[in-house]
Amino acid sequence: MAKGRRLSVQELTIGVLGGTGAQGRGLAYRWAKAGLSVLIGSRDAARAESSAAELRAATGSDTVAGADNAGVAARSDVVVVAVPWDAHAATLEPLRAELAGKIVVDCVNPLGFDKQGPFRLDVPEGSAAEQAAALLPESRVTASFHHVSAVLLADGDVEKVDTDVLVLGDDREATDLVRELAERIPGVRGIYGGRLRNAGQVEAFTANLIAINRRYKAHAGIRITDV
Amino acid sequence: MAKGRRLSVQELTIGVLGGTGAQGRGLAYRWAKAGLSVLIGSRDAARAESSAAELRAATGSDTVAGADNAGVAARSDVVVVAVPWDAHAATLEPLRAELAGKIVVDCVNPLGFDKQGPFRLDVPEGSAAEQAAALLPESRVTASFHHVSAVLLADGDVEKVDTDVLVLGDDREATDLVRELAERIPGVRGIYGGRLRNAGQVEAFTANLIAINRRYKAHAGIRITDV
Repeated sequence: MAKGRRLSVQELTIGVLGGTGAQGRGLAYRWAKAGLSVLIGSRDAARAESSAAELRAATGSDTVAGADNAGVAARSDVVVVAVPWDAHAATLEPLRAELAGKIVVDCVNPLGFDKQGPFRLDVPEGSAAEQAAALLPESRVTASFHHVSAVLLADGDVEKVDTDVLVLGDDREATDLVRELAERIPGVRGIYGGRLRNAGQVEAFTANLIAINRRYKAHAGIRITDV
Repeated sequence: MAKGRRLSVQELTIGVLGGTGAQGRGLAYRWAKAGLSVLIGSRDAARAESSAAELRAATGSDTVAGADNAGVAARSDVVVVAVPWDAHAATLEPLRAELAGKIVVDCVNPLGFDKQGPFRLDVPEGSAAEQAAALLPESRVTASFHHVSAVLLADGDVEKVDTDVLVLGDDREATDLVRELAERIPGVRGIYGGRLRNAGQVEAFTANLIAINRRYKAHAGIRITDV
């Protein structure tokens, strides 16, 4: 998506790398339901197409398709990165050309897990999103959708997802568009959450939400008050 | 406060190190209004007593006094650390004996500021709270009150502060008591937020709330949904 032209998400193709995982599939489901054009990406094109077929059946949408991650990156206007952290760099590095000039939405949480639960992993670049920005210098990298519950996204009986979605980035046009994308999920508000250099704590805060979920037996989200 | 005995915050003396700063004074004001015994600490005992006198006048409380930080640490049951980050280690290190066995509530946000606003500072221990735990091995260290707006706390016209307060720590009795302390502020819910090793991102998230405040001209807080 070229800078400067004001577009609505309705006109765009939304690609989801790692779209067969829980978070990617949940987001794709909501966007498909909202009538957006969605491409599901996976390392394995057949798996991606099978996920896309499931989504078409579940939503009645005819604007969902699957392809391998490189194909999705090439054919999408906005590309959501929802791969596991340990596949993050290896997925993005070869896609630099395909993702040039495009809005990239990094959802990845660099977390470790042990007997005491999840914890923040150190990332040399500061965060997954800043690693994406370093690997994709010609892309417009934002960070978002870290906290929204995959369980609630995927549950068709949940009409409204009760959470705000923070959108971080240094490019106002890009963060505004991603906020609009967030708000295609019923119940969600898209809230600007700061510059990309402050993405690390937003990613890591997912560990706290997991702790809250365990303590309170919840699918916790966050709302920003006074906004 | 010795471990094992179940106490209510109403029976305890709450000390606030750095109680003459904005965050400390705002918390002390709300706790004084709620009828708790509060000790205001400062490097300068005269400044602490002058702040305490202001709080007595503002709240009608006769259970607020001031002293130097060491005196407050010695005489309090629960000790809130609300000093600036650059005074954090130097304030706590000499108070190890005074704080032994007590619940310590670290509110400190290690942030830097430049032209682009606030950003997370690297802390060798991982967070201010973990630094406190390293310096105070005999204390029961928790982390809390990072996000609550000092402006709203200090404003007597604000009847209810619309926010949840996350309380982190590895000692269930301590985090439960600090949650109770949070809930003495009208409008506030105290929510368990995870182990101390996950405090860094909660502290640093204050940078994101400052960015939100600037963008939306707000005094932002957070609510945890589905809890």
